[in-house]
Amino acid sequence: MTRQIQPITFEDIQTAHKRITPIVKKSPLIYSPVLSEITGTPIYLKLENLNVSGSFKIRGAANKMLGLTPAQQKRGVTTFSTGNFGMSVAYLAKTLGMKAIICISGRVPKAKVNLIRDMGAQIEIIGQSQDDAQQRSYQLEKEHGLTVIHPFDDPEVIAGQGTIGLELLEDLPEVDTVIGGLSGGGMHSGLGVALKAIEPHVQLLGVSTVKGATMYESIKQGKPVAVEEQDTLADSLLGGIGDHNQYTFKMIQQYVDEIMLLDEEEIADGMYFMLKNHQMIIEGAAASGIGAILHEKANLGTCVAIIISGCSVDTSVIMDIANQYQSKSFK
Amino acid sequence: MTRQIQPITFEDIQTAHKRITPIVKKSPLIYSPVLSEITGTPIYLKLENLNVSGSFKIRGAANKMLGLTPAQQKRGVTTFSTGNFGMSVAYLAKTLGMKAIICISGRVPKAKVNLIRDMGAQIEIIGQSQDDAQQRSYQLEKEHGLTVIHPFDDPEVIAGQGTIGLELLEDLPEVDTVIGGLSGGGMHSGLGVALKAIEPHVQLLGVSTVKGATMYESIKQGKPVAVEEQDTLADSLLGGIGDHNQYTFKMIQQYVDEIMLLDEEEIADGMYFMLKNHQMIIEGAAASGIGAILHEKANLGTCVAIIISGCSVDTSVIMDIANQYQSKSFK
Repeated sequence: MTRQIQPITFEDIQTAHKRITPIVKKSPLIYSPVLSEITGTPIYLKLENLNVSGSFKIRGAANKMLGLTPAQQKRGVTTFSTGNFGMSVAYLAKTLGMKAIICISGRVPKAKVNLIRDMGAQIEIIGQSQDDAQQRSYQLEKEHGLTVIHPFDDPEVIAGQGTIGLELLEDLPEVDTVIGGLSGGGMHSGLGVALKAIEPHVQLLGVSTVKGATMYESIKQGKPVAVEEQDTLADSLLGGIGDHNQYTFKMIQQYVDEIMLLDEEEIADGMYFMLKNHQMIIEGAAASGIGAILHEKANLGTCVAIIISGCSVDTSVIMDIANQYQSKSFK
Repeated sequence: MTRQIQPITFEDIQTAHKRITPIVKKSPLIYSPVLSEITGTPIYLKLENLNVSGSFKIRGAANKMLGLTPAQQKRGVTTFSTGNFGMSVAYLAKTLGMKAIICISGRVPKAKVNLIRDMGAQIEIIGQSQDDAQQRSYQLEKEHGLTVIHPFDDPEVIAGQGTIGLELLEDLPEVDTVIGGLSGGGMHSGLGVALKAIEPHVQLLGVSTVKGATMYESIKQGKPVAVEEQDTLADSLLGGIGDHNQYTFKMIQQYVDEIMLLDEEEIADGMYFMLKNHQMIIEGAAASGIGAILHEKANLGTCVAIIISGCSVDTSVIMDIANQYQSKSFK
């Protein structure tokens, strides 16, 4: 079935872009003088952390939710999420006046749970893994007719995330390397279609955490596998890809040129770099591209864009990191 | 002399905009859900802190420096600055391949001095006040033919700062209240011309610090005066306006609807709000608009834009603030 291998096209991403524009504004792209000087390569940061929901996830969620039929919109939606996707669905549900039930595992940081609650969404905290939360979502669909919004393995969600690529090519046509945190693969799948349709030579790199690199292991083994997960600063990079992964596994196989793994210290280095040099607090997953570059794990081309994917992190976490680094000499 | 009262026109700002666009990208405007909820009024943040030099000052400096004759450009420039303007001139000099000598008083925070030095500019640390630094700049002009770039009291610098207003009207045509830190008055003068030419009803508000509100006192007394200055979190708001102020004093009289003063705690509240709710570190001057709104000092209209003017602050300063607030309950 070709449809499964290539579920979305460049045109789908253009359609998504038109659809979400009234709600999702273009995110800023800034130059990083310090990172460029360190590497000798011009490096830009795509600030998805400045989206109104705090992450890029709002793009995919918006494309999916705005595409629902009026009847579906009336019945409402449900999702399961390590946090940022749930936050985006909650924000959109409030904005669009839809009912939303967000299913969350007990592992998701409290700060994210509170933010979702503050947005007025209904929350169900279920079990200890994303699988438990996912099961509950599909049960809600069956019993109450809510539409499940899958956080990554859905063609419309992927097309929405791909709009990052359209914006990048518009602002930085010379880009030849794009790097960012890789988890379920929705963002990289969308980026792959958007970037490589226009610029086939663009290198697309993914960064995962040694504390639970499901997509990395799956690609290595040639099929979706589950891995054990441990607590990490990059909690948004955790979560399985699903035994029955339909889209993102094959798209990551096709589009991502390399996946690299970071340990906790390398992730913290990325977070502190952003705090120190760009005065922004970002979550571990969002800092993974910077961490990979600082530790020379990424093969750089001639013009690099790092996707700074989100900002959901407890202030206390970044404070602890900053306190530790204050005594070190760190660029 | 009409020329002194109305030194720049809306067309000058449009010209500045065209001139600086290759170097100064449009700054992002983001919505603040929390601030909007607290006040019941939609509030947006114009993120001048994300400019490549870390503040809005690059706009005026770029307009002035790009407008110099080739002979002037070859001889180089000099400026005197509480920090951010010096940083912008240094950045531009490096980018444009010009010589620059930045004269700085001994009072300017070390972090800013180091940043300017890192940019490759020559620095002279002179005396304890901006006046001393200013004198040295004019001496350099006389003796070595460098062009003095005045940090605020110059029509081309004012026109450059006014480009913030053009971008605001483009992104947020419904804005009716604009608020930001007021010091020498370059930014507010430019904003006044840009905004009120198109939307005469727009309310323009300035925020200064009780630790040294020169423009506030000057407006009150109807003539440029000097005031005693003390250390403040909002160090960028310090600095005299000059006994022989030619432009900004009269323009602030004409364009600014109200000036309000903040104490240190109110400024810190603004800084912490931004850290906690927008995950960004900004300097005290940049946080003054938020502080004024949080403390209900500003008369809000129906749609507000706060100019977040810059991000130059020692990480240790914001860490101290964050450590203090961690124990308090603060939205």
